Amino acid sequence: MNLFSMFSRRSSAPVARERLQVLLAHERAVIGNSDLVAVLREEILAVIAKHVPVEREKVRVKMDRGDQVSLLEVDIELPEMPQKAQKVA
Amino acid sequence: MNLFSMFSRRSSAPVARERLQVLLAHERAVIGNSDLVAVLREEILAVIAKHVPVEREKVRVKMDRGDQVSLLEVDIELPEMPQKAQKVA
Repeated sequence: MNLFSMFSRRSSAPVARERLQVLLAHERAVIGNSDLVAVLREEILAVIAKHVPVEREKVRVKMDRGDQVSLLEVDIELPEMPQKAQKVA
Repeated sequence: MNLFSMFSRRSSAPVARERLQVLLAHERAVIGNSDLVAVLREEILAVIAKHVPVEREKVRVKMDRGDQVSLLEVDIELPEMPQKAQKVA
């Protein structure tokens, strides 16, 4: 399945707000190995918060830890960013 | 569409290696607004590299910047992590 096409379908019904979605999947060959997804969760949220004002109540986090695949879904509703906030052309 | 079920389907054919997949989607209400996905890309890769030994040639990065949705897909093949690397129970 093409992940890009899946996301693209969402854009066919755009909403008038900024939104950032992060998906992390960790496939483990060894059951019981370290949970990288949990380790990375707060650090990735911190990286995002450095660049955009993130309100905690606008952040939805779902975690699902299976034997072989751990999943993290982070959905952040962002305030509209002013043009001057541009850092990349 | 449920993103979790999509990832879960992948696990029905597990491979004997560690793998980390990151998907970032940024929906912009304002066309031409800053490209948060590009800004976050290197920083998130750096966060991951702090926790696992990432070889650059084992990292596949795809970016797709649309008018309203920017997408980043990062696929990292990890070396098998020894049990002592556990940081989270």
